This record gives sequence, structure tokens and C-alpha cells, in this order.
Amino acid sequence: MNSSLKIEALFCANQALDEEALSAAYLHQQQLTKPEGALGRLEEMALRLASCQKTAHPDIKKPWVSVFAADHGIAVEGVSAYPQVVTQEMVKNFSRGGAAVSVLANFSHAKFEVIDVGVLEDLAPLEHMVSARVASGTQNFLHHPAMTSEQCLEAIQVGMQTAQRAFDAKADLFIAGEMGIGNTTSAAALTAVLSGKPVHEVVGEGTGISFRQKKQKTEIIEQAIALHEPNLTSPLKALQYLGGLEIASMTGAYIRCAQLGLPMVIDGVISSVAAWIGDFVSRNDQLFNCMSVEKLWDLGKYSMPETLFCTCGSCPRLVDWCFFSHKSVEPAHEVILEALGVEPMLNFEMRLGEASGAALTIPLLQQACALHNQMATFEQAGVSQIS
Amino acid sequence: MNSSLKIEALFCANQALDEEALSAAYLHQQQLTKPEGALGRLEEMALRLASCQKTAHPDIKKPWVSVFAADHGIAVEGVSAYPQVVTQEMVKNFSRGGAAVSVLANFSHAKFEVIDVGVLEDLAPLEHMVSARVASGTQNFLHHPAMTSEQCLEAIQVGMQTAQRAFDAKADLFIAGEMGIGNTTSAAALTAVLSGKPVHEVVGEGTGISFRQKKQKTEIIEQAIALHEPNLTSPLKALQYLGGLEIASMTGAYIRCAQLGLPMVIDGVISSVAAWIGDFVSRNDQLFNCMSVEKLWDLGKYSMPETLFCTCGSCPRLVDWCFFSHKSVEPAHEVILEALGVEPMLNFEMRLGEASGAALTIPLLQQACALHNQMATFEQAGVSQIS
Repeated sequence: MNSSLKIEALFCANQALDEEALSAAYLHQQQLTKPEGALGRLEEMALRLASCQKTAHPDIKKPWVSVFAADHGIAVEGVSAYPQVVTQEMVKNFSRGGAAVSVLANFSHAKFEVIDVGVLEDLAPLEHMVSARVASGTQNFLHHPAMTSEQCLEAIQVGMQTAQRAFDAKADLFIAGEMGIGNTTSAAALTAVLSGKPVHEVVGEGTGISFRQKKQKTEIIEQAIALHEPNLTSPLKALQYLGGLEIASMTGAYIRCAQLGLPMVIDGVISSVAAWIGDFVSRNDQLFNCMSVEKLWDLGKYSMPETLFCTCGSCPRLVDWCFFSHKSVEPAHEVILEALGVEPMLNFEMRLGEASGAALTIPLLQQACALHNQMATFEQAGVSQIS
Repeated sequence: MNSSLKIEALFCANQALDEEALSAAYLHQQQLTKPEGALGRLEEMALRLASCQKTAHPDIKKPWVSVFAADHGIAVEGVSAYPQVVTQEMVKNFSRGGAAVSVLANFSHAKFEVIDVGVLEDLAPLEHMVSARVASGTQNFLHHPAMTSEQCLEAIQVGMQTAQRAFDAKADLFIAGEMGIGNTTSAAALTAVLSGKPVHEVVGEGTGISFRQKKQKTEIIEQAIALHEPNLTSPLKALQYLGGLEIASMTGAYIRCAQLGLPMVIDGVISSVAAWIGDFVSRNDQLFNCMSVEKLWDLGKYSMPETLFCTCGSCPRLVDWCFFSHKSVEPAHEVILEALGVEPMLNFEMRLGEASGAALTIPLLQQACALHNQMATFEQAGVSQIS
């Protein structure tokens, strides 16, 4: 992957939302032939998109879906119902259009690509696949850091470059997804660390493991956190020690989207943990007031690049650029959504990942825009207002 | 409106769901490249549609939206935030494509029509409008029955004919909507009567009335129910005394859809109360076991056509043919959804009616079908299964 975007860009400020466009959109919305507020969350969606797209008439004409794929060393511990080879088999399935997210991207005429950021084996070139390999999977974080800090930053950079590429291609909505057997184990570990909740409260069934396997998965995560705890001094360090290459890439992509002002739709638990870490990074000066991560945020121990501490206390938050698509059945997801103070659009009991939940909501956002842009005003329609 | 469909068809049995198609669809779904159940409610939607459409590969290619419009005598009591003339003004807005549901129907390339079943004034012919006038609005049910039994049955028949027309035109999904200033007052009255709940628990803000108006609306409904109580001996009698022409038409349309085997999407509170009444009619033999309406169901007083009591105790329920689209903010809606034991797809805090919530979900149902039909199987994709 060729790009001049350097890792230093990680510390750029987020774009501000356009308050003028928001006001103009609100004034327009007030004139539409419906009681005020009667379209509920669709109205809020149109207004938020207006402030993101800097226009009173937002629209989604070029949605973009990038699925990051990578393998996880932790998979050898039997934390998934599926063998590790499924990661690369699914990359081929994405390439051929047979996976859930491929079908949904196709339904919404979204640009679709899968990015190999670290599948176990180097795959021959495939249609719709971008090769941006950082490593052949992560290390088993039960015994080692999942990534070196260089690998973690490189994977973040791949994500940032991806968002930049989408932006340069005039995408108007960005969606990241993931594929990586074992990655709900990383997501649960990261959620436990970032929230301070006990591991058993955030571990789920993932692809569908048994009760026994779930217990084992919980113990493995507890052991890993105990092993790495002295190094888990920031969300990015947690990402490095317990995360995955694809999670790091998603984090980078989300951070860059907020900097570029490209609205994004967040998928399930993996996607949300990446957005959460990105949100931490982009408002790190506020972190020390955050009770739930207090114990992890020890200024003295902070060992990631010092430049991480940007001083933009007034930056808009990364989550202000995010539309949360659905609430997954993974228990960690509820914890993250609550921590971020967001309410997803759907509660469809999904747990597939891949960006499938996010892609599903493209037509909902498009319909919010269509209503906003195409409904007649009271004046145009000659409809009487409140008596 | 020309149709040979007679009111006696009201008492036909519902179509059975196709269990063979359901099994075939389930077996197919098991083979798709995803963990079992990982697409959550989308899987359930595809399977239900398979059993409705009698095929292992359901699809929605011809969605159909009919909006029934009629005026309400009760509007003179100041129960709405909008003047009564808005009903006919909105009919013109529907005709020109400027209303919310017009925009959404257009988004999904659905057939769209508005049916004048009793707007106050007879309108000149309009594009996309069907004239099927039963009366110039209902009577004010604070003093009179809203409709005569003949009018109520005729409005039901209009709805049945509409569903028949959609079916004959090969529609594969039916959506009914409504427009009628004052109709949340009817919906609340009907919900109170059918559920046995106190009126104040089911009255909402409708189009956006004040606290004072809401109190007045509650008292009006209480008085009306007290006046008509001796006549409210069945759900259909309640419909006649407290309902609206458009609600009666929706009831008829839903009843006919279930008879024809045409799956339907239900909108908000008005739509749901019509579906509820339709559900009562199509399983009337079970009604006497229903505690909540016990007091209303006095066999001796039953004055609607005796043929209402069909003997098809094993008929599938009307609600088995319904997909509930969203949960409205109207408090009556929750009562109805709970009584029917259904969980709508969306909770978007909408309260517009018109079928806007139902039309919004067409792409969700289409995406459920696309996933079901277009995803690769494990065998096709060469993806390994659970280890």
C-alpha cells in the first residue's frame, strides 16, 4: 500500500462539526410536512450527517466498506469455535462476494475491499483484496505481547491510509469491518482493561463456543491481563499487548476519519472497541478524569510516544463522527456503548462482525437523507400548520 | 373501486404458512458462511418470509404501499394539533410525492397509492389516488357511533379489495398506512377498550398536542367509551363506534392479506390497532378465553354478523403474516405490541404514521433476503466449519 501519510498524523486534531450547516439543516427540517420530531431518530440522523458533511442537504452516494483481516496468536488456545484457517478462507470468500458483508455492500452499491493486514499465510493476489501485511498474525498474548509497538503503529498506519484513500476517492460514509478468528478474545480483553470490569462480565460466545470453552476463554484473558498489567499503561499499549492487527487498523482508520471529517458507521464489538481506543487517543487530555480507567492511566508510566498527549482539549470527539449501527449480543458491546454514551440504531441480536451490522444500516441513513431532502415543505405542499 | 370481492370474504380462513418451505430455507441457511444464528433477527426475517412466500428463497421485488385517508368527526373536539383540513391537504401531498411515505416508497421502488375512503370533501381526481369514498368522514363519536355498521363493513371491504388488488398485481409485500387528523384519538379509544387499560395509560401526544389538550383528549375518550359501552360487544363493534373509515379499511386489508397469504409490514399505533382487530376477527373462536377483553365479549349481546364466528380454531393467526416495523412513541402502541406478543424491528421514536415506519423497513427485509439468497455456502466458498 502506497501512501505518504505518516504515523505522526495520528496526533492531528479532529475536524470540527459544521454548526452552520447543522442550523441550516434544522431550519429546513422544521418546514417539512410532518409534525416536528415525528420522524424521531431519522431526523437526528439527517441533522448529524448535515453537520458532518457540512451541508444543509446531506446525502450518501458513495459509501465505502473496508474489511481488515488478520490472524491471532491466541487462537491456538482454542478460544474460537472455528479453526484459524477460516480467516484466510473468509478473505477469499469476501473477494468472491460470498460473505455477508459482501452481499450487503453490493445491496447498497458500496465500494468494497478486504485488506490483508496480517493473515497467517501470504495469499496470492485476489480481487477486491489489498495487501498491507504487517506480520503473519499476532503473537499469542497469553505469553507475549500481541504486537511489538512498531507493528501496532504500522497496523494503525494502514488503517489511517485506508481512511485517507476513501476520503481521496470522495467516499461520503466510511465503514470498517474485521475478520480474524480469535478476535472477540482480544475485544473482551481490551474491554475489561479499558472499563475496569471483571473479565467474566465481558466475555461472550463469539462465533458460538460452548460453556466450557467460554470459561477457558475467560481464564486465558484473566491470565493474559495479569501477565501484561504493568505494561497496560494506556489504551494504545493495551491495543499493542492484547489487541490484533485488524483492530489496530480499524483504530487508525477511525482516527483518520474524524480528522478528515468523514462520517463513519461503527459495527459490533470489535469495531466499537477500536472506536473506543480511537476516541481515547483523540481526547487523551481528558482521560485522567475518567474514573473507570483510572488505575490504568498513570501519567508516570505512560510509555507510548509522548506526542500522544495532544493539547486539543476542545477537539470534537471521535465518537461525534460515528453512527453506531447495532448492538451485538457480545456482552462487551453493551459495556462499550454505555461508556461511549451512544445508542445504536438496531438491536438485531447479531454477532457476525465483518461490518455486516454497519453495512446493513446504509439504507437507513440514506432514507434519513432522502426524507430530509425530498419531502415537501408546508409552503410547497400548501399544507396547513399547527392551528 | 371495482371488485367482485364481497364482504362475506371477511370470514374466510387465513392461509397456512408453508412449513416445507420453512424447513428448506432453514437447511439452506445452515449452510451459509457464518456461525449459526450470527445474523440474528435477519435470519428469522428470511425464514418467516420463506414460510409466507412458500419458497426456500424469499425475495421482495414488488412491495406495495396503500395509504388510506379519511376524516374523523371527533376532530371538532380539538384533539389534534392540526386543523382537519390537513387530511385532504396531505392527500394532495401524497399524490405529488412530497410526504414522508411517498419519499420512502420511492426510495424502495414500491408501488404507491393513496385511497380516499372518506375525506371530508370529495377531491378532484389526483395522480396515485384511488377514490373509494364510503362517507364524508366519520361522525363525532363523543355523541354518535363513528360509523353505521354498513359504513364500517363497506370500509372494511374497501381494504379487502385493496389487498386483493395488490395480490392480483403480484405484490410480494403489502404495507398499509393512514392519514386522518384525529385518528390517534380513535386508536387510543380502541386500545383502551380492547385491552381493558385505563384511557390515561394509552393516550399520547399524537401530532404534538399540549398537556392540557392531552387531558381533554383523555376525558373525551372516557366519555365516549362510557356512552357507547353497551354497544362495544366485539372488536368490530368497537371499530364501528370508536374507529375511523381508514382504520376499518386497514383492518380489511390485513384480514385479506392473511387470507391470500400476502406478507405485510405493520406501521405504528393506528396500523397496529387495525391489525389487532383483524387478528381478533380471524381467531374469534379463541376470544372467549381472552381475559383482557372478557367483559366485552358477551356472547348473548354479540350483534355483528353471526358468521363472524368461523370455526377454524386451527387457522394460523393474522399476526403470523405480519412483520412489525417499529415501536411508536404513542403509549397505546406498546400495549398493542405486548398484547400481540410481537417485537418490532426498529425503535426510532417515530410518530408520523402514513406507513412511514413500515416503508422504512423494506430495505431491511430485502437485505435479509439478499443475505439468505446470495451468501456463499461453506462448500461453495471452501470455508471450514466448526472444528
